[in-house]
Amino acid sequence: MKNSRAKWSSTAKNMNVTKIIPVSLGRRSYDVTVGLDLLDDVGSRLAALRPERFSNVGIVTDSHVGPLYAAALLASVRKAGLAATVVEFPAGEQNKNLTTYASLAERLLALRPAIDRRSLLMGLGGGVVGDMAGFLAATLLRGIDFVNVPTTLLADVDASTGGKTGVDSQAGKNLIGAFHQPRAVLVDATLLKSLPTEQLVSGLGECVKHAIIRDQAALDFLEQHASALLSADGATLAEVIARNVAIKAAIVSADERESGTRALLNFGHTIGHAVETAGGYGAVSHGQAVALGMVAACRIALRRGLITAEHEARVTRTLALLHLPTRWADLPALPSQAKDAATLKGIMLHDKKALAGVVRFVLPVGLGDAALFADVNTEEVDAALAVLQG
Amino acid sequence: MKNSRAKWSSTAKNMNVTKIIPVSLGRRSYDVTVGLDLLDDVGSRLAALRPERFSNVGIVTDSHVGPLYAAALLASVRKAGLAATVVEFPAGEQNKNLTTYASLAERLLALRPAIDRRSLLMGLGGGVVGDMAGFLAATLLRGIDFVNVPTTLLADVDASTGGKTGVDSQAGKNLIGAFHQPRAVLVDATLLKSLPTEQLVSGLGECVKHAIIRDQAALDFLEQHASALLSADGATLAEVIARNVAIKAAIVSADERESGTRALLNFGHTIGHAVETAGGYGAVSHGQAVALGMVAACRIALRRGLITAEHEARVTRTLALLHLPTRWADLPALPSQAKDAATLKGIMLHDKKALAGVVRFVLPVGLGDAALFADVNTEEVDAALAVLQG
Repeated sequence: MKNSRAKWSSTAKNMNVTKIIPVSLGRRSYDVTVGLDLLDDVGSRLAALRPERFSNVGIVTDSHVGPLYAAALLASVRKAGLAATVVEFPAGEQNKNLTTYASLAERLLALRPAIDRRSLLMGLGGGVVGDMAGFLAATLLRGIDFVNVPTTLLADVDASTGGKTGVDSQAGKNLIGAFHQPRAVLVDATLLKSLPTEQLVSGLGECVKHAIIRDQAALDFLEQHASALLSADGATLAEVIARNVAIKAAIVSADERESGTRALLNFGHTIGHAVETAGGYGAVSHGQAVALGMVAACRIALRRGLITAEHEARVTRTLALLHLPTRWADLPALPSQAKDAATLKGIMLHDKKALAGVVRFVLPVGLGDAALFADVNTEEVDAALAVLQG
Repeated sequence: MKNSRAKWSSTAKNMNVTKIIPVSLGRRSYDVTVGLDLLDDVGSRLAALRPERFSNVGIVTDSHVGPLYAAALLASVRKAGLAATVVEFPAGEQNKNLTTYASLAERLLALRPAIDRRSLLMGLGGGVVGDMAGFLAATLLRGIDFVNVPTTLLADVDASTGGKTGVDSQAGKNLIGAFHQPRAVLVDATLLKSLPTEQLVSGLGECVKHAIIRDQAALDFLEQHASALLSADGATLAEVIARNVAIKAAIVSADERESGTRALLNFGHTIGHAVETAGGYGAVSHGQAVALGMVAACRIALRRGLITAEHEARVTRTLALLHLPTRWADLPALPSQAKDAATLKGIMLHDKKALAGVVRFVLPVGLGDAALFADVNTEEVDAALAVLQG
């Protein structure tokens, strides 16, 4: 993966082709399909998924995405001869909770014909929808098939692949959930045309993360195609998505339950999650928070001699090119407690990834590589947060 | 398993010995320990479960069992040096729902020190507690370790082993949940002294079920020791529990996700579940409903020539000896809709085990064996229900 520069096209030519990225997990293996104008084709792709037909299909979406794309998806599924129903919930991370989960579970179980073990649940939406629909699929009848149709760049490149599902608790994000791999992920980059720029930028933050920890050539591509990406060019986005899904798939295949390598995907998330939590849901996008977390983590790595000053500057420059924040000053609306070192450190210690009071950090180690460190001390964290003061 | 009559002691001598029954599921293997006066010993058994200590322990129990045994369990766990907290919910199947689940999840996630990935969740109670605590363990932080301490015979011999967890939906029983194997099951038969006779009898119904589908010699033992069992003799109960756990463990090991053999455990449940649902929770115990379901299923098997009239009579006689119902007349308080053929058939078609409108029946096939049949027709179901008229 790291020596892949030669295989990585530096131009956007020949990119308008559907790409299939296999996620290898033994009996739970599946494909992620990335392309343009895939939505109308979903029904026939479902038919190819299993020899015995799905008995019926429940489509879970939210109040933002439902009005845009649910009718087209429903028509596509029905055209393939499958009974299907759309169940919609109010959009927003604040609704990714047990109350919404319980309500959706009861609505889905009340459908007629009833959901049975050969039913399929689909998610149509961003990360919130995918997490919610995936958790429903993991738990209805103790687990039924799931197919995800993500509609945000963040979900395309990160959340839709890997089988993490769940909802937020009052005590923190994603504290309740299950590992439940989808049967397929269908990524239609065309759908990103309707995505607000802020969310496009948020997704690009995760792309930078993947590039830093695993694929130096991908960082080159992001830097070179920043303007095409920011204008939501479908073919360029599809190329980036396919590349990022491949990085994520390789990591997930090696470590499905996040006991080792998969933890590298948390690069930028130790401080990033703390900023999101302290700011309150909605004050900062996930990609923005992770961008700040990556800048801070790079500073820890620089002080340890794991990366060069040039490398650190390169990361900051790429983030800025993609309109991602690299200093507190880039997010003037962020509440002051979200920038407070004592507050952030308190939250980090309560993160579910903290084990017995030790905060773990993923740090870059040279170009396109990273490692997990359990020995980062308070002084280093303070120095890392200080760099965000600009 | 079927030719095990010679290994099966027909007397209760030498039974006061702790028995360990392994459940073989690869990396998810665990032991079920059955004995007397085990409760005080739980802490030290937990310490042996993992080299690295559990970071803390949450004990989930209900308002019936908590006042009886939670203090002793808590003391035992703390004596082993582990931080532990008891979380109690109102007893009763009517509380095994998503509302209680959500409330317990938030209470557990608010504990300090916080639950982390090395925390242990324990269940202390009957099947409702085990299902609820197991589902919490399956979903807190996307899955943490679980140890079950069942306190009813039904949970001892059936629910505690196999990894099925979950809660009821408004649309039916156990429609929401997950497969999550425990790290250990600790069965203290002494605890059954406090069990109401009706619940003891309910558990014996499941023992009869196991014997019919897999272990003819066990049926002999149940028949011979009926009075010792009904008087809650600890050593005799421990013997029966160990034998039944072994039957269940063998079936679960062969088919963890219930795609084949494990479905045999649903013997008596097709009609039994329908009777429970139609009667409303609490109108009939699980064992009573399953007993009626077994009598009905035996009649279908008899009409198909799968068993003899003598075999059918033997099943009915053993159930009666154990104070289990074999006719509607044995349950005078049962609401009339729970005996109505049209109502029961309607419910069976909506059971989650029904696939595309076909109701499946497990039927006995000779002595100590059974098989799954998907071709039972309406006329046979009517004839089976008619036998319950007496």
